[in-house]
Amino acid sequence: MNSADRPTNAFYAQSGGVTAVINTSACGVLETARRHPDRIGKVFAGRNGIIGALAEDLIDTSLEPDADIARLRHTPGGAFGSCRYKLKSLNEHRAQYERLIEVFRAHDIRYFFYNGGNDSMDTAWKVSQISEKLGYPLVCVGIPKTVDNDLPHTDSCPGFGSVAKYVATSMREAGYDVASMSATSTKIFVLEVMGRHAGWITAACGLASEAAGEPPHILLFPEIPFDQTAFLARVQDCIERYDYCTIAVSEGLHDASGKFLSEMGLKDAFGHSQLGGVGQVVAQLIKDKLGYKYHWALADYLQRSARHIASKTDLDQAYALGRAAVELALAGRNAVMPGIVRLADVPYRWEIGVADLKDIANVERKMPRDFISADGLHITDKCRAYLAPLIGGEDYPPFRNGLPDYVRLKNISVPRKLGEFQI
Amino acid sequence: MNSADRPTNAFYAQSGGVTAVINTSACGVLETARRHPDRIGKVFAGRNGIIGALAEDLIDTSLEPDADIARLRHTPGGAFGSCRYKLKSLNEHRAQYERLIEVFRAHDIRYFFYNGGNDSMDTAWKVSQISEKLGYPLVCVGIPKTVDNDLPHTDSCPGFGSVAKYVATSMREAGYDVASMSATSTKIFVLEVMGRHAGWITAACGLASEAAGEPPHILLFPEIPFDQTAFLARVQDCIERYDYCTIAVSEGLHDASGKFLSEMGLKDAFGHSQLGGVGQVVAQLIKDKLGYKYHWALADYLQRSARHIASKTDLDQAYALGRAAVELALAGRNAVMPGIVRLADVPYRWEIGVADLKDIANVERKMPRDFISADGLHITDKCRAYLAPLIGGEDYPPFRNGLPDYVRLKNISVPRKLGEFQI
Repeated sequence: MNSADRPTNAFYAQSGGVTAVINTSACGVLETARRHPDRIGKVFAGRNGIIGALAEDLIDTSLEPDADIARLRHTPGGAFGSCRYKLKSLNEHRAQYERLIEVFRAHDIRYFFYNGGNDSMDTAWKVSQISEKLGYPLVCVGIPKTVDNDLPHTDSCPGFGSVAKYVATSMREAGYDVASMSATSTKIFVLEVMGRHAGWITAACGLASEAAGEPPHILLFPEIPFDQTAFLARVQDCIERYDYCTIAVSEGLHDASGKFLSEMGLKDAFGHSQLGGVGQVVAQLIKDKLGYKYHWALADYLQRSARHIASKTDLDQAYALGRAAVELALAGRNAVMPGIVRLADVPYRWEIGVADLKDIANVERKMPRDFISADGLHITDKCRAYLAPLIGGEDYPPFRNGLPDYVRLKNISVPRKLGEFQI
Repeated sequence: MNSADRPTNAFYAQSGGVTAVINTSACGVLETARRHPDRIGKVFAGRNGIIGALAEDLIDTSLEPDADIARLRHTPGGAFGSCRYKLKSLNEHRAQYERLIEVFRAHDIRYFFYNGGNDSMDTAWKVSQISEKLGYPLVCVGIPKTVDNDLPHTDSCPGFGSVAKYVATSMREAGYDVASMSATSTKIFVLEVMGRHAGWITAACGLASEAAGEPPHILLFPEIPFDQTAFLARVQDCIERYDYCTIAVSEGLHDASGKFLSEMGLKDAFGHSQLGGVGQVVAQLIKDKLGYKYHWALADYLQRSARHIASKTDLDQAYALGRAAVELALAGRNAVMPGIVRLADVPYRWEIGVADLKDIANVERKMPRDFISADGLHITDKCRAYLAPLIGGEDYPPFRNGLPDYVRLKNISVPRKLGEFQI
């Protein structure tokens, strides 16, 4: 049976932490697939990611009207549900991989689109290997997604540009607030952002500072071990120059011994250490050592779901990568991931490139040292040149009753054809 | 000397915590004053609020071009600096009040505009009393401002509508995120918002929930003593129905004995109790008692400075109240505050009313009990009808290089005419 003779089905799943634009990639996949009814029959989505495939819990996206699919472009979160479930090696999780092929076979699925980060590209690569081993014809294409911006072989990752725009905007706004209050009240403001291993999101906060003295004044990266003395000296210097000091800090900030600052500070009522809250630890350190009143904010999920202030560049890339994934699959390109290739910083130009999944899996891209200033406490012009285009452009969602009008799909299940499977 | 014969000067100051739209009121004051050069000479702003008047540290706003004054409409924070400094009774702070009059006399200031909350209206009232006592001709007009929405004699307060729009938008967006993740990861999301005594901001989060099951599922108000048993039962009920639970909590949540929940939880490395973080206390309680994984966010200053998602209704009212203050002053109305009078909920209609400062000072408006559901954990339809119009409409700031383009004024000082004064 030649898959070119008749349309076969596709599987699409969302993986890991969701973003403001992962549904935009889904929109790109689904709208492109719908333009090729001669090649792709239905697109089935995994309910809650790859778990949906393992459990044969598939969503029939063909039952959603075109208008609702179009609304995915401006809806944050994961429309079909995502999951944190890592498929291990082919040996350890062989039953799982075989189950995937079994489900795909039962539902005539010949295209596998996996929308996620490092782990997911690794999974997609392994699925392509097992399908080959089992002789099942499957085209596997990864679609990059991660707010952490830590995937290699793509200039940037969908999801990151929108977080970047949100945190830089928030930092600038809070900076205007603190500057107003410093004479008699708050002098210190700390914003804690995501980033366990890579400081890209903290770096993006730095874009809010376009001239000397503008917030944020200090950036604390996981790539730079925390140096308390140098940090406090810089805080004091800011107070003397500007009367206030604003700081962005990555959740993964740690000291020279590798110990997370978030583990050093707070204990709950039972004496257990509390993870999270590095922002408060840093702020309280300033209060204890220098005596200044602080405020701190924890953006948490707000930063990665803030579709209302998404980057148009990010949205365009998220959509383009979803579309490219389908086009690559239709061209028979197996075990690949479309990525962003930068052609120029100013004016910003980019195109879609293609990388092999085997080269991407589990390689983490941290901030280059020359993106961080010599003192380790801010970004360089080189970093600005890289980051600036990624937050370019606004693309507001429609509003209804004063609030963003996001879509909820019907998410109707495909009838099961197989027995239970213990995940 | 009759003030109608020639133009005299005005003083304008911002007081207390700033908002996304306090500069919009400033814009209304300054643009309106500029249209009456026959009556108002220059408007001097207090640098860092009333402290600027006491210290004779005045800003000459006439040196700012019209275009920059217009940009105040879309700039958050307090453009002239604000302060937390409460003038006490006329007896206790008599020297301060007399100093104000001395500074006003030295700079030919006959109009006093004070933009703030409860305390500020009290101060404006006292300034009008002392000027009368001292026989100095001064027209005192208050301009309401507070994100807390707790001023009486105005249907709503500028600043609140924009916070309300921000928190409801953020809650909806985070809700889409958590719903995607609940199958294998986070089931609980808690957003901590401002509100020590009044739950208006938490109530506004409730607008994001338009149908049963939509986030937020639970609201915790300072008006309702925290009932741990009822709360945990409701959380468990949400998990069973929806597989996740989203919660908004006021920073001022307390138990039946009046003890703040924020004081119950975390201790720093030295064993000191940490104020703030009631969001984490509530989330950790769920983890300890029910075992669900949580995320929490602390909006802090982000919520009150988020001009990028301000409410157009709020902006229109902030501007109109600034303009009305000048028009009232020119009409010789002393010791008053313009306020919002609601004419209809749907379609929303409002007009400017006038209240006497003596009736406003230090009266705090909490949530009426019939705005809170019988179980104390959500808002009623009556509350929705009140809140909904306040978040109506979008009015995006201009963007430059992917970020909101806010103005920084030159803030040039007026030469001093008096000696030092010990504040």
